[in-house]
Order: sequence, then structure tokens, then C-alpha cells
Amino acid sequence: MQLTIIKIGGNVIDNPDALKRFLTSFAQVPGDKILIHGGGKVATQVAEKLGVQTTMVEGRRITDRAMLDVVTMVYGGLVNKQIVVQLQALDVNAIGLTGADASTVLARKRPVKDIDYGFVGDIVSIDSGQIWYFLRQSLTPVYAPLTYDEDGNLLNTNADTMASAIAVDMIHRAEVTLVYCFEKKGVLTNPDDDLSVVPELTPALYAEQKTAGTINKGMIPKLDNAFAALDKGVSRVIICHADDLAQAVGQGAGTLLKL
Amino acid sequence: MQLTIIKIGGNVIDNPDALKRFLTSFAQVPGDKILIHGGGKVATQVAEKLGVQTTMVEGRRITDRAMLDVVTMVYGGLVNKQIVVQLQALDVNAIGLTGADASTVLARKRPVKDIDYGFVGDIVSIDSGQIWYFLRQSLTPVYAPLTYDEDGNLLNTNADTMASAIAVDMIHRAEVTLVYCFEKKGVLTNPDDDLSVVPELTPALYAEQKTAGTINKGMIPKLDNAFAALDKGVSRVIICHADDLAQAVGQGAGTLLKL
Repeated sequence: MQLTIIKIGGNVIDNPDALKRFLTSFAQVPGDKILIHGGGKVATQVAEKLGVQTTMVEGRRITDRAMLDVVTMVYGGLVNKQIVVQLQALDVNAIGLTGADASTVLARKRPVKDIDYGFVGDIVSIDSGQIWYFLRQSLTPVYAPLTYDEDGNLLNTNADTMASAIAVDMIHRAEVTLVYCFEKKGVLTNPDDDLSVVPELTPALYAEQKTAGTINKGMIPKLDNAFAALDKGVSRVIICHADDLAQAVGQGAGTLLKL
Repeated sequence: MQLTIIKIGGNVIDNPDALKRFLTSFAQVPGDKILIHGGGKVATQVAEKLGVQTTMVEGRRITDRAMLDVVTMVYGGLVNKQIVVQLQALDVNAIGLTGADASTVLARKRPVKDIDYGFVGDIVSIDSGQIWYFLRQSLTPVYAPLTYDEDGNLLNTNADTMASAIAVDMIHRAEVTLVYCFEKKGVLTNPDDDLSVVPELTPALYAEQKTAGTINKGMIPKLDNAFAALDKGVSRVIICHADDLAQAVGQGAGTLLKL
């Protein structure tokens, strides 16, 4: 059984035309599939209007109670349901979920060391059996980047990490392809040159590019998640432009990771 | 097979302590169950802060595009997911849904006659088979009062109507009890006296109370929905205080409707 797990980034979500193009391609991906979406800038805009301050520490958003409410509204409500309803119009029987729904992605509030990230969750376990049931009912899960703990808290969780964790947990049930879609053509050796896509990235080449500084800060956690998934048994991991999803799944675009 | 479908109103949702008490009772209702929640005042507050104007025509909220986004955030995101995560902490395997999710409650945008209500949906059909699958997986559906149409629109839908429509559609699969929980002890003959609960309400008594003016405006659509459900084969319809859910299901509180 083939399963394609696709993560779509915030930049695409912020652009209605780009999102529509992406969802049209997503609808055409054959077989079982799961979509995990990021947040986008809407949360920051809504937070501003509601008078909720965005606090960043070392480039990371701190999720206090007020910000948790904002991301629950925007990621779990607005973004998630708009994607679901657009997919329904494209004949994809989508079901919008957070990790709390059907207790599919359990997490734990990140322990406070130097920094208190607030309501941020590190994934503990995934109920891949429940996700599998959804797929067997011809449903397409659409995950917002929110998880939960057993004390009744919703938790903000990185969408790249969530995609990787779900992919790894599904390998005992299907041959899993994990695709990270974003606004670049793939992993680039020159961030300003879309033609500089690395067609295949090995750990050795990744290390080399990191040392050379050509793979930039934002890409490093994404690629670490991606290699971790490959290492743990995901069959294929691809990084590509949201517009190239169809070709990338057919292996004709983006960057393919290799161990 | 017993199925209890419970609608909880906005006044309870607006009060965190009352909501917690209600969810604790809800968790203890035996057998299969479905929760449908209203919106509450948070949507109006969020709309105000976001600069979205609330337009009321003849006491009904007009849902323009901006207001639809607000209710999608608040009903579909904030309220729905907060209920789901609280139920998970009470060992209820809840799954938060709108009608768009798993295409369970299809609607159609209300045609414009004298008034354009905007993105308001009248229910067309319910996929009771899909809802049944959820129940058979020991999941407890928690519905936000949002539906969808086939053109890719989310639609705002009255929660009382949604509860009644789902109840009626499930009668071929289970013996259905429908409970409307709100902030009054039941149907009252004197709105200011909680001891004036009508223990059993028949259509004749309902007509009489309407004529006498003791059953007030807000109760009329609720009771019309409730009697319609009973008329179409729902086994029991009860109207009670949110705090009395346990006794009401055991038939010791609230108003029981009788044909």
C-alpha cells in the first residue's frame, strides 16, 4: 500500500492562488494521502489585531495562553477548515484534525530549561491505527500543527516535525513517501538561484553544504526532520516547490534525499 | 443500540466553569454519544476586536465573508478544539468536526428572498453512515455549527437545527435521545421562575403556552426543531439545564417532549 504524506508551508497558505493550485495538485496525487499544513502569517496578523503580542526568543515564537488561543483559532479553525472545504469541492473526502482529535498525536509540554516556550508540544506518540482507519474509510486527514497532552492542553507543534513523526509511524502499514512542499524549487546550493536545485542530497553532501553555509538556517531543522524520517524507514523523502508536487511525486522535480 | 445526541448552548460555552461541569457530566453519559455546540459570545467579541461589524436583521446575524472567517476561527477552531481537548482529559475519545469534515453535513447557501443572510447554510443531507463509523471506532463526534456546500464554501448553521437533523438521520441505526442543554431548568411557564418547569410538553400544551405568551421568542425555534425531531422518529427529546444532564438522561429533570 502506498501512502503519500505531504507538508505544505506557511508561505503557500498565505497566498490563496498558490494554495488553490497546490490543492488541485494534491487532489490528483494517487492513493492514500495525508496533508499537514503550517500556520502562515495570518496568525501573526490576527494576534496583532487582537492585541496579543508576538514574543520571539532566538527566532522562535513563544506560545503563551493568549497566543495559543490565536493559533487554535487560525491553524485549527480558519486555515484547516478552508483547506478541508476546498478539498471537498475537489472531490477529496478530507477530514480536518488536530492531534487532539481522535487522540491521534499525543505530545508533552516542552520542559522549561533556559527558555519557556509556553504551550509548545514535543510529540510523544501517534495512533497510527486510528489514522489507518481513516484512510481505509477513504478519508484524507488534514492536520493542523496542533497536538495535545493528557492534562487537557492543546499544544503548538512544528508542522515539519509533525509530518516526519506521522510518516515514521505509518511505515509498518504502508510504503511511505514524505514530501515537503514550500516556495523554493528544492534544496538550493545558491538560495537566489532556483536553477541550483540539488537533485539528490546525501548526508555527506548535506554536511558539506552546511559547512559551506549554502544551506541556510531555516532549511536545517527541515532537513534534519527529513533525514530522520528516511533513517527511520520512510521510503522516499522529497523537498520541492508546491507547484511541482505532481512531478515531484513522480520523481521528476525537487530534491530527493538519499541515505 | 442507544445513541444520545446532546446540544450545548452558547451561554454555557461562555462560562469556563459551567462548561467544565457540563463536560464532566457529558463524559459520564453511557453509550454512544454526539455533542453539538453553539457559538457563544466569543465570536462577537473577536469580531469586534478584528473590526468586523456584526449586522443583525430581524434578530438574526448576517454572515458576510469576514464574519464567516470569524465564526470559522471561533466555532470551528477555538471552541471546538477546547472542548475536544477537555474531553480527551476526561477519557472521552472526542473528534472535533464541522459538517465539511468527512463530508458529513452537506448544506446549501440559503437563497436570497427578502434578506441576504450571507454564508448561512440550510442542511441538505447527512452522511449518517460515516458518523456511525466514527461511533463504532469508539469516537465521540463533537460538531461545531458549521456546514459546507459543494462549491467550496463553509456555511454558518444553527446548532439546534444541526442537532435535530443529525438525530433524525441516525434513527435507522440507533434508538436516539436528543437533549437540548441550556441555562434554564427546562421549558418554563414563567421565565423568571426556575420552579415553573413543565415536566412534559405536548404539542397542545405548546400551542397553548405560545398563545398565552409564556413560551418566549428564543424558545420557539428550539421547540419547533425539537418537536420536528420527535415527529420524525427520534425516541426521546429532552430540554434541560446543562447542570442537570445526568438526571435528564435518566428522565428525572428538565422537560420531556411528548407527541
